[in-house]
Amino acid sequence: MAVTASDLAALRAILGPQGLIEDPERRRAAGTDWLGEYGGLPAAVLAPATVEEVSRALAYASAHALAVVPQGGNTGLAGGSVPEGDELVLSLGRMRAVRRLDAQAGVVVAEAGIVLSELERVAGEAGWRVPVDLAARDSAQLGGVLATNAGGVRYLRDGPLHGSVLGLEVVLADGTVLDGLSVLPKNNTGYHLKNLFLGSEGTLGVITAASLALRPADRVRATALLSLADLEGAATVVTRARRDLGALLAAAELMEDGAMRAVLRHVPDTRLPVAQAPAYLLLEAASAAPSDPAVRERLLAVAEGAMGAGLAVDAVLAGSEGEARALWRLREMALEGAQRAGSRHMYDVSLPAADFGPFVRHLRGELGERLPGWDVLVYGHAGDGNLHLNAVRAEGAAPAGEEDGWRRLDEAVYGVVAAHAGSISAEHGIGRAKRDYLGLSRTPAEIALMWRIKRALDPTGCLNPGKVLP
Amino acid sequence: MAVTASDLAALRAILGPQGLIEDPERRRAAGTDWLGEYGGLPAAVLAPATVEEVSRALAYASAHALAVVPQGGNTGLAGGSVPEGDELVLSLGRMRAVRRLDAQAGVVVAEAGIVLSELERVAGEAGWRVPVDLAARDSAQLGGVLATNAGGVRYLRDGPLHGSVLGLEVVLADGTVLDGLSVLPKNNTGYHLKNLFLGSEGTLGVITAASLALRPADRVRATALLSLADLEGAATVVTRARRDLGALLAAAELMEDGAMRAVLRHVPDTRLPVAQAPAYLLLEAASAAPSDPAVRERLLAVAEGAMGAGLAVDAVLAGSEGEARALWRLREMALEGAQRAGSRHMYDVSLPAADFGPFVRHLRGELGERLPGWDVLVYGHAGDGNLHLNAVRAEGAAPAGEEDGWRRLDEAVYGVVAAHAGSISAEHGIGRAKRDYLGLSRTPAEIALMWRIKRALDPTGCLNPGKVLP
Repeated sequence: MAVTASDLAALRAILGPQGLIEDPERRRAAGTDWLGEYGGLPAAVLAPATVEEVSRALAYASAHALAVVPQGGNTGLAGGSVPEGDELVLSLGRMRAVRRLDAQAGVVVAEAGIVLSELERVAGEAGWRVPVDLAARDSAQLGGVLATNAGGVRYLRDGPLHGSVLGLEVVLADGTVLDGLSVLPKNNTGYHLKNLFLGSEGTLGVITAASLALRPADRVRATALLSLADLEGAATVVTRARRDLGALLAAAELMEDGAMRAVLRHVPDTRLPVAQAPAYLLLEAASAAPSDPAVRERLLAVAEGAMGAGLAVDAVLAGSEGEARALWRLREMALEGAQRAGSRHMYDVSLPAADFGPFVRHLRGELGERLPGWDVLVYGHAGDGNLHLNAVRAEGAAPAGEEDGWRRLDEAVYGVVAAHAGSISAEHGIGRAKRDYLGLSRTPAEIALMWRIKRALDPTGCLNPGKVLP
Repeated sequence: MAVTASDLAALRAILGPQGLIEDPERRRAAGTDWLGEYGGLPAAVLAPATVEEVSRALAYASAHALAVVPQGGNTGLAGGSVPEGDELVLSLGRMRAVRRLDAQAGVVVAEAGIVLSELERVAGEAGWRVPVDLAARDSAQLGGVLATNAGGVRYLRDGPLHGSVLGLEVVLADGTVLDGLSVLPKNNTGYHLKNLFLGSEGTLGVITAASLALRPADRVRATALLSLADLEGAATVVTRARRDLGALLAAAELMEDGAMRAVLRHVPDTRLPVAQAPAYLLLEAASAAPSDPAVRERLLAVAEGAMGAGLAVDAVLAGSEGEARALWRLREMALEGAQRAGSRHMYDVSLPAADFGPFVRHLRGELGERLPGWDVLVYGHAGDGNLHLNAVRAEGAAPAGEEDGWRRLDEAVYGVVAAHAGSISAEHGIGRAKRDYLGLSRTPAEIALMWRIKRALDPTGCLNPGKVLP
């Protein structure tokens, strides 16, 4: 239903003047996604300050069949946090309190709108770290991170958020507040409802706060960058690193040379401290123990082993925190480098890690045949079988007009993903971008069950309509 | 509905003569739980050999409104895997194949009926370990472990199963097969349906197979037993161990002296290698790295630090695998020791770990006032805030008749749990035992949502009726 002036008046009465934003510029910002690819102008932005306000606003919206798009830092890359047109955006940005920090148990309870790097700072001051981190840490908000089950650079070590979230406070479509903010590590009391909302991208409820199990902060760390002989070898090096480092392995991040070139060319203050090669692997080992000689020694042994086996052709071990940050910057600027190289369309796919090489070869073959002039910049989380692909025009090719559209490209990429038993979304989610392709990764019975759950939780369909479910 | 002769004939036609068990002795065994406290004689035991047979049997059962109780190794401690009367037990014991083992990626796909120790053996041969382990490992089956979201002795390190299960094959009540056996570490494609079934205790669907992310097998391990000055100090020692060992900390297991005495008295081949004390803490550090001096050194430092701070009064570090196993045996025999000491009723509660001491004191005070003659043997997973309490008659008290019932005891224990912001089930689940107390740990809105989900997935209510939901 279209949002009327009387709806806006009612919502203003619930949320107060600060809680209802009609300013066109702020509406436009809330209606545009990070990639500039999806979105539409929302009727208004709701900015509640308390869970009670969220509850009353949602109760109103569902009673009046108004569509509501929950939004955190709006850093999502699948178009899941922006409206398509005349909807209401529900911004959690004003709810950003740390409600509780238990420094002995390592548990934090924080509101959805807290920015990830701020939460990390608060945890760090107490000797802990947050079990999720990603390059958008200075904008991404906790609620969006949870609602999209975001992956990121700690996933290899800390696993999915389903293993770290102890409890959630969620407002259902009808305004019901689920107060599930348990701080207990174990709590087998009926269905683990919280897990329904992690990764549901705001279509089943609005996360307003969460309790998280923190991890002891690292006190020893070693970071290496390896030049790989080819992309193929990445999986083997990662397997060796997992076996030889065990829980000390903190990260295994991958870049093909093309993605690295884009960073070196377009991002200031970057330089490559190893020999140019077809691909690069960033490995990090870390430990919370005050001293653990194995962290540096075993990482060095992994790097030397990779060179001895011909899998790597060069390697550098960071000699200082500054050098380690510089290595990370190369990898974390990959998306920005690709965007500055002209890429506006990207993929986030999951594959059996051993398949990276064959997959990329197969994909380039398909592009060469079906969409000449197109190439992909490849990088990602090697330890998680997760590749990011930024679509670019191959060097020398004429620029493509918008009219080319992305659909033919999508079909080529997802076809190859399916052929390699991969998934069309590793960590970015489905959102609007991949909704119509969900059937490539999930069975009809699974999608039917998703709909059954959606209807049970949001019978009027007011929460983030048109996202996730085809 | 009562199961009729014509139902049995139809089910025999679906499952074959081996798949329908009417033998009274086997029915009785399937109808009696581990504690001998819950159960009833089932009309028959269904023992399908394939997922198709599970599907056809469930389709028949739901169409004819027959109640079906899924059962694995029947080692559950909450009465969740046994029928209450004339129901059908669905045993997964014939489905025990390892369908796939990827030794490079560390992923296994196995059927629900495989016994946990057998799965561990298969994983171990390939250099990996399963991310869950528990004392009932030689009887417990994978499907039951998953359906109850079992905790156990690796939880501290590996976290809940929601973080380790990559995918499930599940048969819904109407016979629909959900083929969700993804082997990808990351797969953000719509709702994470698998998480609904982990911990739902067979009330939402029947798990027939699972894919699991394995962990690299440990190659270095150190095990210590500490005599604690009091129960209070356990949480402090565990926090220090977490901070100083980080991911090397593999286990932190607790026993009060009463529970230890029961083991030493009733279980053969046990002896206490440390000074008698009010409580004991078993700590284990481990690493997959081929050599990591920190494992032994830092564990020793934790033990010495605890003694230096007066938290521990004695400690021993196992000098061999045999000695380590002997330390573990003390802890793992705690339930058996308590049972041989006459305990038939137990609790599995979750608490803020810092509250162990005050909680137990408070509880003993309540028992002394309200149920004189009763005491509890206390042990559990200190690192997870998880205590087990076996109800016993205090020394010298007259034996209690059955007519005492457990309800007054339950009310005393759960009242104290609630007063300490704990949970009535840490890892054993709700089953039949705690169904009527679920409201002590979950809100009315949460329980209402559980029912909404139950009705959406099992509209005729044929799956494990009377369990979990009040």
